[in-house]
Amino acid sequence: MTETTGKLYGLGIGPGDPELITLKAYRILQSVPVIAYPAMENGKVLARSIVADYLRPEQIEIPMPLPFSPTRSSQPYYDIAAEKIAAHLSEGRDVAVLCEGEPFLYGTFMYLFNRLSGKFTTEVVPGISSTMASASALGVPLTYRNDVLSIMPATLDAEVLRDRLAVADAAVIIKLGRHFAKVRDVLIELGQFDRALYIERATMPNQVIRAIADVDPAVVPYWALVMIPSQQKSVT
Amino acid sequence: MTETTGKLYGLGIGPGDPELITLKAYRILQSVPVIAYPAMENGKVLARSIVADYLRPEQIEIPMPLPFSPTRSSQPYYDIAAEKIAAHLSEGRDVAVLCEGEPFLYGTFMYLFNRLSGKFTTEVVPGISSTMASASALGVPLTYRNDVLSIMPATLDAEVLRDRLAVADAAVIIKLGRHFAKVRDVLIELGQFDRALYIERATMPNQVIRAIADVDPAVVPYWALVMIPSQQKSVT
Repeated sequence: MTETTGKLYGLGIGPGDPELITLKAYRILQSVPVIAYPAMENGKVLARSIVADYLRPEQIEIPMPLPFSPTRSSQPYYDIAAEKIAAHLSEGRDVAVLCEGEPFLYGTFMYLFNRLSGKFTTEVVPGISSTMASASALGVPLTYRNDVLSIMPATLDAEVLRDRLAVADAAVIIKLGRHFAKVRDVLIELGQFDRALYIERATMPNQVIRAIADVDPAVVPYWALVMIPSQQKSVT
Repeated sequence: MTETTGKLYGLGIGPGDPELITLKAYRILQSVPVIAYPAMENGKVLARSIVADYLRPEQIEIPMPLPFSPTRSSQPYYDIAAEKIAAHLSEGRDVAVLCEGEPFLYGTFMYLFNRLSGKFTTEVVPGISSTMASASALGVPLTYRNDVLSIMPATLDAEVLRDRLAVADAAVIIKLGRHFAKVRDVLIELGQFDRALYIERATMPNQVIRAIADVDPAVVPYWALVMIPSQQKSVT
């Protein structure tokens, strides 16, 4: 970490609405010479698209390919991305890695952080998670007073989902995709289905909110979640 | 909700660092004629202090007194605040209520939302919760992949804390204050004490990070939390 090396930023850029980036992330985004972002093999470069209007043509861009299939290991991809980023840092250029939502909450940045933060000065700038933005988008308060909130991925086994949801006062189930039918069945079994809310791509231009009973399990995207708000609805 | 009435905003202003407000909240904050914010009886007006540099002298300010003692009901205080805000809205003036962190996560705004959103057009702008900002401030990733994250207030009974923490892969225990010793004892019992992290007033100018073993239970503030990060520390 000599003075001549660059600084690594993990930049939370929020859930999708470009205006939901913080003043701090905006300032850093415009000041760094190099930006890096995940680029899925299927062509999706979501993080870049969120901040596209804020980028300057003279900035160096590092798209980081990541495997689309969940069955393939991401490790070699992160190794390659970390090497590319380290090369710029070693030559004294600051690098900002764009992170959808909050970098330290189920973020891809953490795999770069674990590879690079020991070698280069690193700062993480928090961002608004879609988990939190969904409550605002749905217009429903999530937790009151003594509530316990649980956030969990839909990829968990049905038994684990059931056990965790059974004791949560409020919950958010993320990364729905092809796991929707399993989640739906667990919610019905627990008697939580009627108060569950469904949203796709919260705050993005193509945001969709629909009654959970109307959701077709065959077409649920990865960026969809179910929110089970607190049953407290006090005005006190 | 006629066109002549004003719009109510619940404005998430983030965890404390004024730069961690979103571009959207900043824009609305500067454009509304009226702002309202909680003012504790002990003189603390934290929310206003976070955005003080962004306010304009011609804006009308509504400090909303709230009882300092947790044993007194807040209901009459919210009734009074809602009336004052409704008066401005009825006369066509937009009102932004400042909310520390995220408005729909354990926020005081929800009590105004439940009183006013049925009568006036209301928009909630999400903010960064201190729960999330603490992970960045501590420099430790919170959740990976299939982790279940639980967020809970330290005010819960020891038995409830123990049961919920026992099944969480990662957790954040908020609102510590005088409940620190109880939380500490539960963490020791569960074998989670050694990986627990402690932070006061995350991202504020007077932020404090100290080893949890060095914390004096007698002087823990309300705005302190314990974070138990995921034990996954994979680079894959």
